[in-house]
Amino acid sequence: MNISIDFAPAQSQNYTVFIDALERLTLRGKVAIVTNPKVAGLHLASLLARIDADEVYVITVPDGESHKTLQNVEMILENLFMHRFDRNATLIAFGGGVVGDMTGFAAAIFQRGIRFIQIPTTLLSQVDASVGGKTGVNNRFGKNLIGAFHQPSAVYCQSEFLATLPAREFGAGVAEIVKMAVTFDADFVAYLENHPLSTPSHLREAIARSIAIKARVVAEDEKEAGVRAVLNYGHTFGHVIENETGYTAFLHGEAVAIGMRMANALAQKLGYLTQTECARIEKLLEQYGLLFRYPVQNPERFYNAFFLDKKSLNATITFIVPKSIGGYAIVKDAPKETVLEVLREFDR
Amino acid sequence: MNISIDFAPAQSQNYTVFIDALERLTLRGKVAIVTNPKVAGLHLASLLARIDADEVYVITVPDGESHKTLQNVEMILENLFMHRFDRNATLIAFGGGVVGDMTGFAAAIFQRGIRFIQIPTTLLSQVDASVGGKTGVNNRFGKNLIGAFHQPSAVYCQSEFLATLPAREFGAGVAEIVKMAVTFDADFVAYLENHPLSTPSHLREAIARSIAIKARVVAEDEKEAGVRAVLNYGHTFGHVIENETGYTAFLHGEAVAIGMRMANALAQKLGYLTQTECARIEKLLEQYGLLFRYPVQNPERFYNAFFLDKKSLNATITFIVPKSIGGYAIVKDAPKETVLEVLREFDR
Repeated sequence: MNISIDFAPAQSQNYTVFIDALERLTLRGKVAIVTNPKVAGLHLASLLARIDADEVYVITVPDGESHKTLQNVEMILENLFMHRFDRNATLIAFGGGVVGDMTGFAAAIFQRGIRFIQIPTTLLSQVDASVGGKTGVNNRFGKNLIGAFHQPSAVYCQSEFLATLPAREFGAGVAEIVKMAVTFDADFVAYLENHPLSTPSHLREAIARSIAIKARVVAEDEKEAGVRAVLNYGHTFGHVIENETGYTAFLHGEAVAIGMRMANALAQKLGYLTQTECARIEKLLEQYGLLFRYPVQNPERFYNAFFLDKKSLNATITFIVPKSIGGYAIVKDAPKETVLEVLREFDR
Repeated sequence: MNISIDFAPAQSQNYTVFIDALERLTLRGKVAIVTNPKVAGLHLASLLARIDADEVYVITVPDGESHKTLQNVEMILENLFMHRFDRNATLIAFGGGVVGDMTGFAAAIFQRGIRFIQIPTTLLSQVDASVGGKTGVNNRFGKNLIGAFHQPSAVYCQSEFLATLPAREFGAGVAEIVKMAVTFDADFVAYLENHPLSTPSHLREAIARSIAIKARVVAEDEKEAGVRAVLNYGHTFGHVIENETGYTAFLHGEAVAIGMRMANALAQKLGYLTQTECARIEKLLEQYGLLFRYPVQNPERFYNAFFLDKKSLNATITFIVPKSIGGYAIVKDAPKETVLEVLREFDR
């Protein structure tokens, strides 16, 4: 069974996300596959065998969020110029979110934009990072602070690449699936509660449903002027956690899982979520090993860090919280004291 | 008399180019004016007096094409992060094309895109660089090789800023005006022949007509998939000249003027332009001191340099040449030998 989901962002070309449909990839012009050493060792041969193009190059970037830098994007660009790539070329991002974000950004700014294809190899990037067109890099001030909106021309999600995924990375991907379900689709939450994702067919179904939700959101709001911000559920808190721990202690999805629980606690205090609903989400996260302890050392400092996050406009911090199961609220007026309470109490 | 010209690029927000209409500029959020030391010394006080915003910052970048680098864009971004700019901020490009291209690119990639306003202070940037949304930087492989399409939210062309423009820079701007006229509008060519641009009212008229032509072109083809390439008349040759001379011997418009004459010679050989028409254009350029000697040292090397220029797809080089006065031809099949002849003969 092949699944394909159409993306129709308002200001860009439409494109399709294919699930388990990558047989041959025929491309005109020069092609560069950007990947990391580990993915290349495991899966590059299998990808190369399926690519049909005049000239194919491979560029590796170091793995890990700390290497998602403008310097590495420059390195990618240097390689392209060296091999005389032109506007007719295609980049292929072959890896997780780090590879995808940098490759997409390189494609966005190489000669003011060339085609790129996402072939995500982690669960997290399959359900989230590879679709929607957000590209960019980190700097010392925070995550994804430099970047562009640049939609891929196609996305291929292959379950074969997930077979080698370490358990922690699998869990980190589940966190983003739970995120989509909790804020947009109560039926999907019930599905996740009753269909363990260790079963391949359940996993495919969950990936497809997550991507379909994201496609709807991006079609409505490509450049994050409105509803797309809801995808940041768990991220406002999560980004600060990643920053405080130097991007090393937690994977992105793990930090988001902690962030969702903080957001849930806030939702409870603001009356959007009952104790019972909150417990349901905790249980779902627990099933996939996503209950991490994160005692906040310094709530005041944690709070101030929100203001450096790009999602906050001026002095207003926007929190996305669940509104019952399957809904969301965009909270722009959370009292500082209430947020500090959440942070102080969060010694789980 | 205030003139305003509406830009309606297909994939971006509409915006307006205002001529001599800058009285007060009221902006929400933080504002950074990016300028160069010379323009700042001459005109910054007058601009600052007209800006109404909560917080205004000024960032200067070194003047000159050789400083249009990714490193300087990073420097601009660093300043913005340092002062906690967010997505609600506005950048103002206050200077010539170098300042405009870098500021626009910084605005394009700061948190995936924020507003920017162009206030061009050179004739060249008023009639060309500041409108149309091309932004970017150079690197060692060539000009504008890294960049993005990012339209300004408004453009203000003020003739007061042209009063301090050195004569050479004025001529360089005239070159782009002639470029527009020759390829798009025979009436405009006749106007230029009979109305010396040293008269302020003629100059304003010429600026407005040039911008109006560009607005039509950009509305039809924002991302340079077709007719927008015609704006490169003189540029395919011109870029190589700039590169060969290390961006120091000629101003951009001057190199374009030489490039137009090379393109005219090619047009004559290919039968698009008569001797008489060619002479008319030469005379117009002569009027503004735009007949430079540029004996091509090594025609073969010059020819090979085309392939590094981003406008060439694969092995095809696209030349834009005038088709009589007021028209154009997009030539994709010029025989190499004919182009070499043009280069060999061009010892004027």
